[in-house]
Amino acid sequence: MRLRRFLPLVLAALPALQAEEGMWTFDNLPLKQLKAAYGFEPTQAWLDHLRLASLRFPGGSGSFVSDEGLVLTNHHVVRGYLQRLSTPERDLLKDGFVARTRAEEIKVPGLELMQLVALEDISARVAAAAKGAKSEAEALRAREREIQKARREKAEATGLTVEPVLLYQGGETWLYSYRKFTDVRVVMAPELSAARFGGDHDNFTYPRHHLDFTLLRAYDQGQPVRPEHHLRWSQSGLKAGELSFISGHPGSTSRLLTVAQMDLAREVQLPLQIAGMERRRAMLEAFAQRGFAERALVGGQIYGIDNGLKATRGYLAGLKDAEAMARVAKAEADLRARVQADPGLRAQAGASWTRVAQAAQAARALAREQAMVNTRGSELLATALHLVRLPAEGAKPEAQRLPEYAEAALPELKARLIRPRPTPYRADLELHLLTAGLEEAQEQLGAGHPFVKALLGGRSPETVAREAVEGSKLQDPAEVKRLLEGGAAALATSADPMLALAHRLDPEQRRLRARMESEVDGPIREHAARIARARFAVLGRDTYPDATFTLRLTFGVPAGYPANGTLIQPFTTLHGLFDRFEGWGGATFNLDRETWRLGTRWLNAKPRLDLATPYNFASTHDIIGGNSGSPVVDTRGELVGLAFDGNLESLGGRYFYEGRANRTVNVDARAILEVLRKVYDAGPVADELSRR
Amino acid sequence: MRLRRFLPLVLAALPALQAEEGMWTFDNLPLKQLKAAYGFEPTQAWLDHLRLASLRFPGGSGSFVSDEGLVLTNHHVVRGYLQRLSTPERDLLKDGFVARTRAEEIKVPGLELMQLVALEDISARVAAAAKGAKSEAEALRAREREIQKARREKAEATGLTVEPVLLYQGGETWLYSYRKFTDVRVVMAPELSAARFGGDHDNFTYPRHHLDFTLLRAYDQGQPVRPEHHLRWSQSGLKAGELSFISGHPGSTSRLLTVAQMDLAREVQLPLQIAGMERRRAMLEAFAQRGFAERALVGGQIYGIDNGLKATRGYLAGLKDAEAMARVAKAEADLRARVQADPGLRAQAGASWTRVAQAAQAARALAREQAMVNTRGSELLATALHLVRLPAEGAKPEAQRLPEYAEAALPELKARLIRPRPTPYRADLELHLLTAGLEEAQEQLGAGHPFVKALLGGRSPETVAREAVEGSKLQDPAEVKRLLEGGAAALATSADPMLALAHRLDPEQRRLRARMESEVDGPIREHAARIARARFAVLGRDTYPDATFTLRLTFGVPAGYPANGTLIQPFTTLHGLFDRFEGWGGATFNLDRETWRLGTRWLNAKPRLDLATPYNFASTHDIIGGNSGSPVVDTRGELVGLAFDGNLESLGGRYFYEGRANRTVNVDARAILEVLRKVYDAGPVADELSRR
Repeated sequence: MRLRRFLPLVLAALPALQAEEGMWTFDNLPLKQLKAAYGFEPTQAWLDHLRLASLRFPGGSGSFVSDEGLVLTNHHVVRGYLQRLSTPERDLLKDGFVARTRAEEIKVPGLELMQLVALEDISARVAAAAKGAKSEAEALRAREREIQKARREKAEATGLTVEPVLLYQGGETWLYSYRKFTDVRVVMAPELSAARFGGDHDNFTYPRHHLDFTLLRAYDQGQPVRPEHHLRWSQSGLKAGELSFISGHPGSTSRLLTVAQMDLAREVQLPLQIAGMERRRAMLEAFAQRGFAERALVGGQIYGIDNGLKATRGYLAGLKDAEAMARVAKAEADLRARVQADPGLRAQAGASWTRVAQAAQAARALAREQAMVNTRGSELLATALHLVRLPAEGAKPEAQRLPEYAEAALPELKARLIRPRPTPYRADLELHLLTAGLEEAQEQLGAGHPFVKALLGGRSPETVAREAVEGSKLQDPAEVKRLLEGGAAALATSADPMLALAHRLDPEQRRLRARMESEVDGPIREHAARIARARFAVLGRDTYPDATFTLRLTFGVPAGYPANGTLIQPFTTLHGLFDRFEGWGGATFNLDRETWRLGTRWLNAKPRLDLATPYNFASTHDIIGGNSGSPVVDTRGELVGLAFDGNLESLGGRYFYEGRANRTVNVDARAILEVLRKVYDAGPVADELSRR
Repeated sequence: MRLRRFLPLVLAALPALQAEEGMWTFDNLPLKQLKAAYGFEPTQAWLDHLRLASLRFPGGSGSFVSDEGLVLTNHHVVRGYLQRLSTPERDLLKDGFVARTRAEEIKVPGLELMQLVALEDISARVAAAAKGAKSEAEALRAREREIQKARREKAEATGLTVEPVLLYQGGETWLYSYRKFTDVRVVMAPELSAARFGGDHDNFTYPRHHLDFTLLRAYDQGQPVRPEHHLRWSQSGLKAGELSFISGHPGSTSRLLTVAQMDLAREVQLPLQIAGMERRRAMLEAFAQRGFAERALVGGQIYGIDNGLKATRGYLAGLKDAEAMARVAKAEADLRARVQADPGLRAQAGASWTRVAQAAQAARALAREQAMVNTRGSELLATALHLVRLPAEGAKPEAQRLPEYAEAALPELKARLIRPRPTPYRADLELHLLTAGLEEAQEQLGAGHPFVKALLGGRSPETVAREAVEGSKLQDPAEVKRLLEGGAAALATSADPMLALAHRLDPEQRRLRARMESEVDGPIREHAARIARARFAVLGRDTYPDATFTLRLTFGVPAGYPANGTLIQPFTTLHGLFDRFEGWGGATFNLDRETWRLGTRWLNAKPRLDLATPYNFASTHDIIGGNSGSPVVDTRGELVGLAFDGNLESLGGRYFYEGRANRTVNVDARAILEVLRKVYDAGPVADELSRR
């Protein structure tokens, strides 16, 4: 394997950049490093082709994979749409779906795909616009005006969807222009049990056996789109150690946090988050134990918490990786030294690390209150708090409002408050959660804390919760609508006890938020920006910008890694899928039928399958949430895989890249063709994909 | 799964005994617990049958599995014998072996199997013999005399091999009588690459794919033994959660260490051991890098160290399991409280935990010297030290000698010193290791330490090592023989510089050993015995004795467990074997050809195999080294598996049983029949095994 080979050759000058680290923008790739390590140099045409074949999904990524508009993404990227398209008679999740003809393809309402057709660097123009500004605030407004102006001009000139993109924490400003596809239809989706085989247990792990793909087709004016660029399906697939690229949209990273902030996250914030999730999970589980209907009601929430717990524990494990943290600390020390050595940078950011550390110290002192002074898990109290705050905030000038009441956010917030609930309202669940939430606050903060005194007024949590829940009408959207429309006057005449509780909570939370803003968030915002500017001044484009949910390219290789006491293999195969199924007892004895289930279509197909077909693979690419559905291509630009997850060891990737065990997990392109033909009887789709 | 179910029911009175914990003697099984938890009660005939079908191997276990004397054990239990039976033309390890006829079966020189035919409790007789003794020492001698007398009488009366067995740290004394089988022949052995598929990487791990079995046949007077008891081969195999038993010979456990001793092991001893192994590995690796011949010479040693490192890290991880250690501490506190509550026990052992803790504290102070004051990895210096000490120790009365020079040990020690070396002597390796060893001592202890001053006398490690190695003739067995036979006189006239070094080392090490004996080992021996007696007085036979490499029964079930971020499945299958093979690139691309290799006989057989056949399984049985080769039987007493290892999480089992993730790893009996028939073309053997 060549994982570590090129660091000493060409990256030694950069602090702590690892071999395959980096979510690079298409205009600024580490071409020399690639050439040196792999002897490969992509041409501009190669890059343009890959960029134009790539697509952005809401919250995910995808790509064109046929000349008639077939689009490949993950099953989990479009799972919500598939759910909404399902009916008792046609359950796309439970049974999967294959369109036998174009006519059978199912339109997905609301799904829009974005293709990045142009990028323009407007940094100079934006900087120029701010030149004569008399203050930093005026400069900020001037820059913002110029960006919006450039965007409008571009959109009008091209008819494209244009988005401004701030890279390097504002070091560069770009306009990204997208073509939008708004008629997208489902062509093929496997059943959920195959797409997420192993359920939450196997989530974030590897070896993995997920058929996490879906095929859609983009239409334009009723006809399949014939994209100028689509990815050809590889005939050979990838080998261990073979160079490959992932083109997609990493959502966000926190790799520029200072060591003090990472210490804060490791020692205080993440443990508190985990404890909070564990408590909420325990509360929901206690409710679920009451009966079948109760479990049906909150089972999904418990599943979601399990997912969050696993991820958050992974973040925490990453921050506990002493070797990686030493590298982070070294990089920070290097950067600080270079800032100290330059008088201009020192004046600007020399003290900023210390200031951030002071703010992190302040955050430690407020962390417990931060976790407790809120609506305590009650849905009605959250609604009530919005109702109480909306008239007050709406009356203020924009700049003085709490940020969630900015003018632009109001329509969606109001719509959300009166939207019908997805699950039936249960007063007993509401009472259970609010009681437990109030008890917890009393226990954690003490009965003498102002927040506890304000909410309980000396009474027991259960009494207060019962009075508020049983007396409230806020579960009724019509009542919420009445109060929303009636504003301050309607509020003043309402005797709803939940509103009364919200009135008592409001000032307590405002006080805490004001302290957080002045002692923690404000200073960190200011000094993180100074550090970012200093960093850009020192490193410039020799590194990659933090993720911004815009198109990036990362390179890497399929590779095993050390875990579970051994070396984990780079590829799994269809053999492994059946091993995992049979290992629990197979069809005759399945410990957890919903978890490692293979339906009869799989059991029937088994004799026809080439079981040695690679199924999933682990690779060293540097990706993060938002990259789901990204194509993996080889040096010929051909599709060899589909990124869908990271292993547990990759979760620390939120904070740093660690090449030893951080792995992207992908569906192998060979498996998709094999199962389309032999499990899903979807030969025509497979043929369309493999057309050359 | 029923793992934790019966603890609250029936074991709550015992401190900290977990559900399936226990290596029980056949005369004292937890029958009530078994009945309560599994509704199963073995009859005496069932137990006698299993005991008489069980066999003891040198260092391992096995069983009779056919009415014509077929014996099943692990491949690794007889690996050394297979190696010695191999020739370049007939390499049993590389190619495996199948005897096509009885005549082809290969006799294994020196291999003796032991069948436990009778057990007798002689505790009362031994206690009576010591009754009139005037001192503890006299009582000890009286007991020992009585044990040997009983043993001789039994052996003469029965013609059997009789061994005294001290259970519960001397709380009970038994005579175990064995029938010995001395003509044992190899019938079938798979190739090493299948038997230990995944090599050291997969060692101690699970999911596992080891074909770790060998079939032998016991003969008597030239004819196959027709054992009265053999295990019938199960036709159905085991299911997850199904009760089963393992009958075999656990070697030794350290479960009665006090918390202070475990703390010492966790904080000082094991970390030092690990650091020592890591350093020795680094030294050997540096030597191996010199070339092919060098790697060939020390590769085996490196492999051995890797194995030891993995095990020791596992022990350490076990001791770091906070939950398990809390249970250990609770059990100790419970026992201490019961000892304190009884005046007699208090007088005997009330202070013993404190005394052990003091000794552990003394051990901490001496630990670094303990690790350094020795022959520093030099083979010649070790030989020289024996040569220097033998005349001196031989001249002393037995009771005053260092224990390794006891009269009974001398013949083997002398034979070992003049035995031809298995690998050629390399002065450069010797010099490399001794230099590094002396450097390390100087670095760790400081140049002023008496040991360092004695060995180096102010010169550099390399100078001292070079002079000793280059001037020595001790690599020559003839020279060692001459010195051994010449005794003190020959030593006095030898100018061998390695002997001179040994003369300087000898007093230093004796001084340290004397301190260890008086401050650490002596007090611990005394007070551990007092604690053990108090423990037996309190708990008696309500618990199981520490392992003594005698026959024990443990019960459990196949069960998954949490690891690697998910739940690990209870069974692997032949699918998993091929997945692991193909996952590295299969036949065309194998990262480590020797590690996950499947020979052509497997690739050819694949189409014929039922790949869903269970291959290995993980189970909750409580076993330890010495149990290797033990049969796993179901409640019908039929053979369902073959124990061969534990997972990483089981390594803490040296100190305590932890049912959450401690798993025994077994070969599934179904796999053995399947591969005998389809991979090894050994149908007749499979037929003999499955005869009913």
